[in-house]
Amino acid sequence: MQNRQKVSNAIIRRLPRYRRYLGYLQTKGIKKISSNELSELIGYTASQIRQDLNTFGEFGQQGYGYEVDKLYKEINRILGLDREYKTVVIGVGNLGQAITNYSYYYKIGFNIIGLFDVNPKIVGNVINDVEVMDAAGLEEYLEKENIDIGVICVNRENAQRVVDSLIRGGVKGIWNFAPIDLEVPDEIALESVHLSDSLHALSFMIRNNSGEKKD
Amino acid sequence: MQNRQKVSNAIIRRLPRYRRYLGYLQTKGIKKISSNELSELIGYTASQIRQDLNTFGEFGQQGYGYEVDKLYKEINRILGLDREYKTVVIGVGNLGQAITNYSYYYKIGFNIIGLFDVNPKIVGNVINDVEVMDAAGLEEYLEKENIDIGVICVNRENAQRVVDSLIRGGVKGIWNFAPIDLEVPDEIALESVHLSDSLHALSFMIRNNSGEKKD
Repeated sequence: MQNRQKVSNAIIRRLPRYRRYLGYLQTKGIKKISSNELSELIGYTASQIRQDLNTFGEFGQQGYGYEVDKLYKEINRILGLDREYKTVVIGVGNLGQAITNYSYYYKIGFNIIGLFDVNPKIVGNVINDVEVMDAAGLEEYLEKENIDIGVICVNRENAQRVVDSLIRGGVKGIWNFAPIDLEVPDEIALESVHLSDSLHALSFMIRNNSGEKKD
Repeated sequence: MQNRQKVSNAIIRRLPRYRRYLGYLQTKGIKKISSNELSELIGYTASQIRQDLNTFGEFGQQGYGYEVDKLYKEINRILGLDREYKTVVIGVGNLGQAITNYSYYYKIGFNIIGLFDVNPKIVGNVINDVEVMDAAGLEEYLEKENIDIGVICVNRENAQRVVDSLIRGGVKGIWNFAPIDLEVPDEIALESVHLSDSLHALSFMIRNNSGEKKD
């Protein structure tokens, strides 16, 4: 199954976890790991792990396991983390600022080079060396800059409109934090983080755990 | 399938989406909706929707559909949003501050009443009327306050230790933003938001979309 278009959403979700655990092994100075050991660590079955990684090529050796550094590097490449992404953040409230200030994103190639907001109290502020621009100038900015990713931190009412502007401006991917399911053409990558949905799932679990015995 | 313990993770993920769309319908003044109309809006099949909602009781009427207000209220109850949660945030950097400042969480009952950090530059700051306390005093604080939820915004190295303290202190749920898979007992609800994993999934999709034709 070498055809990249056929990679399932489930694998896309597992790959960043592999990367996270391999990065952890690197910090511990571990050089080799078998799929069984990786299984104990990550919690997927060894056969699942071998199958997932085989999707992208032959990384392990029978009876030897995986070289941690090499596999980490390969997964970075598969995840598209071997390049840089010119990124803009739209909506520089609390969450937009938190994302802009998170140095790890820059380290792995997500360079936030443009910030936009509609609030006159925020426009002109400098966050992590980038000055917040008026969102009215977004489309003009996109015509000049070749932006890869737009991060949506505006409210739900404005999110789709901003995304439409970003897509007209040529971005390839949208990282959405607005509490809305956005519509984008097939060729645009869309990843949404619905924080409130996540919190609601937590409260569901609390409600259903509390006062009742688990199996 | 009325046994609450048996509710699948997939339904838990869908419920907040139902709530989100029903809330949207309320803002539009829509009073009634059929499962077919809901299907067009949400993107799940009508039979999926009927099956999901039947898990929790009889909300619709044959040939009539669902009453939006009533169903919204019921889903709130199912999600445990008919009560309040005493919440603490541990780690009041950019993300912890963003969460603390997000007024929507208070509106739906998540009252952030305690903030903790280890950084002397942050301890003593007042965020949304709450003074940041020294994390050294967390366990003592938990003995006095009956806290429901701990929000983890510390780094990966300290996350498990903080969670262990919170659990000893009697919290019922953990909302985790640290890039680590935490270990908690079965009776503790755990919900993790791995932002970097999400960004990596986005870059994977960009890499695999760009320059290749989709089916």
